[in-house]
Amino acid sequence: MDLNSDLGEGFGVWKLGDDSALLGVVTSANVACGFHAGDPRTMRSVCELAASNGVAIGAQVSYRDLAGFGRRFIDVDPVELADDVLYQIGALSAFATAAGARVAYVKPHGALYNAIVHHDAQAAAVVAGVRAWGDVPVLGLPGSSFLSAASAAGLRTVHEAFADRGYTPEGTLVPRREPGALLTDTAAVVDRALRLASDGEIVAVDGTVIKAGIDSLCLHGDTPGAVHHAQAVRAALEEAGVTLTPFA
Amino acid sequence: MDLNSDLGEGFGVWKLGDDSALLGVVTSANVACGFHAGDPRTMRSVCELAASNGVAIGAQVSYRDLAGFGRRFIDVDPVELADDVLYQIGALSAFATAAGARVAYVKPHGALYNAIVHHDAQAAAVVAGVRAWGDVPVLGLPGSSFLSAASAAGLRTVHEAFADRGYTPEGTLVPRREPGALLTDTAAVVDRALRLASDGEIVAVDGTVIKAGIDSLCLHGDTPGAVHHAQAVRAALEEAGVTLTPFA
Amino acid sequence: MDLNSDLGEGFGVWKLGDDSALLGVVTSANVACGFHAGDPRTMRSVCELAASNGVAIGAQVSYRDLAGFGRRFIDVDPVELADDVLYQIGALSAFATAAGARVAYVKPHGALYNAIVHHDAQAAAVVAGVRAWGDVPVLGLPGSSFLSAASAAGLRTVHEAFADRGYTPEGTLVPRREPGALLTDTAAVVDRALRLASDGEIVAVDGTVIKAGIDSLCLHGDTPGAVHHAQAVRAALEEAGVTLTPFA
Amino acid sequence: MDLNSDLGEGFGVWKLGDDSALLGVVTSANVACGFHAGDPRTMRSVCELAASNGVAIGAQVSYRDLAGFGRRFIDVDPVELADDVLYQIGALSAFATAAGARVAYVKPHGALYNAIVHHDAQAAAVVAGVRAWGDVPVLGLPGSSFLSAASAAGLRTVHEAFADRGYTPEGTLVPRREPGALLTDTAAVVDRALRLASDGEIVAVDGTVIKAGIDSLCLHGDTPGAVHHAQAVRAALEEAGVTLTPFA
Repeated sequence: MDLNSDLGEGFGVWKLGDDSALLGVVTSANVACGFHAGDPRTMRSVCELAASNGVAIGAQVSYRDLAGFGRRFIDVDPVELADDVLYQIGALSAFATAAGARVAYVKPHGALYNAIVHHDAQAAAVVAGVRAWGDVPVLGLPGSSFLSAASAAGLRTVHEAFADRGYTPEGTLVPRREPGALLTDTAAVVDRALRLASDGEIVAVDGTVIKAGIDSLCLHGDTPGAVHHAQAVRAALEEAGVTLTPFA
Repeated sequence: MDLNSDLGEGFGVWKLGDDSALLGVVTSANVACGFHAGDPRTMRSVCELAASNGVAIGAQVSYRDLAGFGRRFIDVDPVELADDVLYQIGALSAFATAAGARVAYVKPHGALYNAIVHHDAQAAAVVAGVRAWGDVPVLGLPGSSFLSAASAAGLRTVHEAFADRGYTPEGTLVPRREPGALLTDTAAVVDRALRLASDGEIVAVDGTVIKAGIDSLCLHGDTPGAVHHAQAVRAALEEAGVTLTPFA
Repeated sequence: MDLNSDLGEGFGVWKLGDDSALLGVVTSANVACGFHAGDPRTMRSVCELAASNGVAIGAQVSYRDLAGFGRRFIDVDPVELADDVLYQIGALSAFATAAGARVAYVKPHGALYNAIVHHDAQAAAVVAGVRAWGDVPVLGLPGSSFLSAASAAGLRTVHEAFADRGYTPEGTLVPRREPGALLTDTAAVVDRALRLASDGEIVAVDGTVIKAGIDSLCLHGDTPGAVHHAQAVRAALEEAGVTLTPFA
Repeated sequence: MDLNSDLGEGFGVWKLGDDSALLGVVTSANVACGFHAGDPRTMRSVCELAASNGVAIGAQVSYRDLAGFGRRFIDVDPVELADDVLYQIGALSAFATAAGARVAYVKPHGALYNAIVHHDAQAAAVVAGVRAWGDVPVLGLPGSSFLSAASAAGLRTVHEAFADRGYTPEGTLVPRREPGALLTDTAAVVDRALRLASDGEIVAVDGTVIKAGIDSLCLHGDTPGAVHHAQAVRAALEEAGVTLTPFA
């Protein structure tokens, strides 16, 4: 099992989450590339610490939206979106390479992540941007238009689930503004992780059990108690004998 | 002799200069990387056209200043400046590589170009950013702190002169707000080019003749009659038997 | 009849349209406020010229999207959108007041204009932002959710039509990417203006005649021949005896 | 005595300092206006809380530099700087007015604050921007070029000192990167405040006693223990019988 988390999501003086603590827990780091967060200095230091910890570096690409932290759908023209994606991967790659590593995968962020579950044109655009960069795996939601398009384009697709997000019975995420969107209880987060790792199952907000072949578990870094959750999940998985290693 | 020009300096709906015409004239394209100008879509199309025309692609790195077009000195911390430079080179590299080419050199833009003539700390920072990227030539002003630092760091340095800018007797550029800053007469621009190519000489605003070993001649794309000047310079140099080829 | 046009839509070195020429033609200036275009220096000079020409100043409010020129729908939270609108009106008001004038009305721009034809929550948000500013008229599309919400909130609503945009039989604008979106023939633009001023009628792309009570005619400044069109429309209306005066 | 603090210095998801706690302590709020920090939603909520607490609202104007938090000198053309200042005051004014208050004063931020201690052209530009807005007091460093220019232009000038910043013997601030820049000990901060309020004296880093006629004491909100310091200063001043009230 792989553990991934969003990292480097500050900008300038503003910080978000505890990057250095999370880099001691996860096996894959989704690094913000400057469009929703992530100034160059932060990108460099996250890449350096990830490289020295053996954590895989992924490009966390986003809509261009610092003011909205990439959490607002933008109806970008697909041709421009592909170029926006390529720009971000390229920028991050410079820091990954300078740190002796490389961009090992791509994971869309926030509203873009959510949009390309169903938005075929934007999903294809993100895939086109990744393909223009190279043959790297993409990390996303099982069943999404994005993973389908990526697979059709010959990219390796990696299925993820969220340790701390509520799921609908259909297997999509409960929107952030709705109740049940976030699991804040550590035990619930740990149970989610263990059940996924052992049985490949997720329990939805209404109790429905969803079958899911999951390669990576996403731990958020910007929720209350994020680091504590992440450490608890890692400890529980290790105790249960699950091997934690980057998928890429 | 190499002919270089600043290209891709629009942003979104806003255009500046005639990129496609200039790409038929120059041998090296200094492509804006998004910090003073240059949206991803423009970066891609300029890289594609440059690659298909056999024009070398250079990263035109800048202070982060869209509102000021990178023409205002910013007292950036050198550590951050190095990272800003690396970010921009990486982003452009993605488009250059996707177009089947590569970032063949780096040339600072605007106020950064002017600052690192004398500002040792920022000059060293730009060199550090380039070195973190790789061993590519840098294009700059002869005698500048920037080229000295680059040379000391083992980078190839390429000396440039400006076909359409006024020079002080000391060999620096006349500031843009002062009289004589721009040569607007085509004959004067062509004379400058021919004398540089044949004798390595520049005539300053006061008539002083400056000796200069120049590898590349910069043609601006955003001045009145820019394309006409550029075409006249190329025609005159070719007629005089000067071989025009990228330095990189 | 009022003639309005989008003005001040450059940013920094980048210019768009011929503001000074259009300010000799229109009676109302929709001035960009910095979110899709419009740096402070441009806002000041447009306000000064508008004030000295007796042209009414309107706040052309937009999504925050310089890279997309405000032409991309953004799913902004309505609470934030109201604040974005208020911010922009306030900023413009400072320049209008310094020029001895005032913000006389508000007109949304681009994708926001289009969204609030139908998007009730964003329409209400724009109205809330305007109301938080004060009791000024709003300029918009007849039948839009925006004008309904504004009217319900006690704001004066001003109906506009576009001299140079294609209309669907339903009275909405033909999207910019579709054929017939722009009227480029001067005679067609003038005919549209005259028929609107005399009979209150618009002919749609399929020949359907739409009845429309129009208070203001929008002349675009960023289309080919924009100034020529605008001047021809003004001349034809004046010759036909139509009084041209700001609605506000 | 007046107590002022920088507030509203987050941006989007990013927060900085504890605005609501500080609004229970200070008498004047320097509200960020969007150029170095301060999204519209934050501006509104800070203005509302300030208005309901009887705290005066000041425009904390800055260079346009979100990435650098306005802490980097930018060599802005004075004409543009005046317009940048006017833009920011206007934007904040909309929120102040909507909250039933007004922009009661202007205080430059960060690198701009420091630059106009000596930079006459930028000092004059800031004064020009304020004057274009109206006849409001400006808050600044005693002896600065800024306050001199403001005074000459007929604006009321308000002298401030910093409770938690180190002073040189010349009465200027110790730069943030040097030792002694910040007083982190609560007792030292309280002593500074009491001595200023009672005797009008500041003790510099080398022990020199500086005489200073101070109208307002600045409490930072972004330093470690900021809220605790601010509360301790207020409590000590009240206990010493000092009346705390906005200067504006």
